[in-house]
Amino acid sequence: MNSTQKQEIAVLGSGSWATAIVKILSENEQVAIHWWVRNPETAEHIRTYRHNPNYLSDVEINPARVVHVSSSLPEVLAPARWVVVAIPAAFVKEALSSTTAKHWLSKKVVSGVKGVIPEEHLLVTQWISREFELAEENMAVIAGPCHAEEIALERQSYLTIASLNLAISEEFARLMSCRYVKASPFDDLYGVEYCAIMKNIIAIACGIAHGLGFGDNFQAVLVANALREMKALIDAIYPLHRELTHTSYLGDLLVTAYSQFSRNRTFGNMIGRGYSVKSAQMEMKMIAEGYYAAKGIHEISCHYGVHCPIMEGVYRILYEAAPAKKIFDKIRESMY
Amino acid sequence: MNSTQKQEIAVLGSGSWATAIVKILSENEQVAIHWWVRNPETAEHIRTYRHNPNYLSDVEINPARVVHVSSSLPEVLAPARWVVVAIPAAFVKEALSSTTAKHWLSKKVVSGVKGVIPEEHLLVTQWISREFELAEENMAVIAGPCHAEEIALERQSYLTIASLNLAISEEFARLMSCRYVKASPFDDLYGVEYCAIMKNIIAIACGIAHGLGFGDNFQAVLVANALREMKALIDAIYPLHRELTHTSYLGDLLVTAYSQFSRNRTFGNMIGRGYSVKSAQMEMKMIAEGYYAAKGIHEISCHYGVHCPIMEGVYRILYEAAPAKKIFDKIRESMY
Repeated sequence: MNSTQKQEIAVLGSGSWATAIVKILSENEQVAIHWWVRNPETAEHIRTYRHNPNYLSDVEINPARVVHVSSSLPEVLAPARWVVVAIPAAFVKEALSSTTAKHWLSKKVVSGVKGVIPEEHLLVTQWISREFELAEENMAVIAGPCHAEEIALERQSYLTIASLNLAISEEFARLMSCRYVKASPFDDLYGVEYCAIMKNIIAIACGIAHGLGFGDNFQAVLVANALREMKALIDAIYPLHRELTHTSYLGDLLVTAYSQFSRNRTFGNMIGRGYSVKSAQMEMKMIAEGYYAAKGIHEISCHYGVHCPIMEGVYRILYEAAPAKKIFDKIRESMY
Repeated sequence: MNSTQKQEIAVLGSGSWATAIVKILSENEQVAIHWWVRNPETAEHIRTYRHNPNYLSDVEINPARVVHVSSSLPEVLAPARWVVVAIPAAFVKEALSSTTAKHWLSKKVVSGVKGVIPEEHLLVTQWISREFELAEENMAVIAGPCHAEEIALERQSYLTIASLNLAISEEFARLMSCRYVKASPFDDLYGVEYCAIMKNIIAIACGIAHGLGFGDNFQAVLVANALREMKALIDAIYPLHRELTHTSYLGDLLVTAYSQFSRNRTFGNMIGRGYSVKSAQMEMKMIAEGYYAAKGIHEISCHYGVHCPIMEGVYRILYEAAPAKKIFDKIRESMY
């Protein structure tokens, strides 16, 4: 194969999801991956030992595909036609602060981030397109249902690549499809992106409910009610005919709300069992994405005037120290 | 309270779901329950020791509410205004064979059965209304999401009472509501009843997938695809505008597909791990309801010409000894 045919792809981030994306893309002979790893020592470790020392350490990094591992963002961006952003939403602004519009010129950007940019109340694709002067038609998102840990195990998974520009979602879906991943193109960019954010809040809610002693019957009703609540808010933000039974919405919610791998659910469970937010975060040694999402969505739902009792309840428990038991007694009454 | 105000309710069946229904109704001071228990020794045991010896044995039977426990069906039916049927679908015909239309005259019948009457391809409400000359407007169904085991533990649960006659569903929903159960009236009798049947097949599918080694990512996509497949079939049978995110459809599916209590899922898991249908049934000492449902729904989907790859796949594995691995490789390809 001629090297000029290669798809040059920059992957930004070195968490478990970024590592899983690198693994999936590496299955494709046509790609050349330029991996941005913030910490120079981590980058050096990956170059030397071909493993990410911190996340999905079992995954072997293939040097025939991952042609470049660097802590210099401009260096990684330069050759890339595609840029995959897989950095926690809370750190996106800071991480990209060393770049300007010229570094992003005519790139196609795919966000694997699940969260809202803090203080901006903007989706990651919206913020990047505004900040680096990229047309919204050049943006896409990767949506689950997909735990990175199962990608490491090469278990059959499904992804949705959503973009306003279907040609982009189709092209990137082909790049992300392999023996154990089927990626499908989709057109509801914003719906999928909001859903991916909200599902983390619902996973926290499921964890809290479990921690409070509610059972499977309650959780099933919680998830069904949450799905309707999510639809009401998404429809208010971006009116469009959507069936929330589509895999990119429902599937993504289910894998997060029900899986043992879900960090958001684990965090919620600790809150439900009586841990304070601070001590749960210290115990977990990380901050679950749904924690930030709860604040972002709280502000957005207030702005649009949409009543979201479950997501609002999680916000009040996490940010206003409202007693989980009392909040869930209200949620329990409001559900049907 | 004057005894003439009492709601006389017959409950037929002595499995775990029937016992849970007796417990829920017993929370209501206004009811007098007449319980039909097929086996005379079991009836005697309940009368003497106030516990069902075989199912949910921890549940105490309150003699102030359960005024009558008998193996004579005509005797139990005689005083009742409401009849709740909670007998496995496969045994309904035989169990009710000692009665005729005169025993059922002007009763309101609520079905808690999840299954199709074998050979008849009829829902339980349809078959009873035809067999005993009752108007369809006098029929209702109790739908989950509700594991009987969690009722025994008095964990918050939600039920849907569906009937073509909203007055009936509202009245019975009031009778079934208590401290730990919120029952809501609903109008899609047939949609809810079919959904309750199909979800058991999907739970078997989830179990098979797990047994074959598929993970959480796969199961989430399986459930989302199954929900669309269920909707396509229900809409073909009874066209109506339905949102399958309603608790009575989605919630019911989730609690069955994801719960550790689900017998159908356990059965499927054994099949996925390589047990034959016979040996899985022997090992479990019971036949999961989804086993019969798979056959009934297979015949109905053929009749309506609706392609249902997941439910049809389960049918072929269970009834035609098709290899689970091969069937799931096809399902895996068809999903998105």
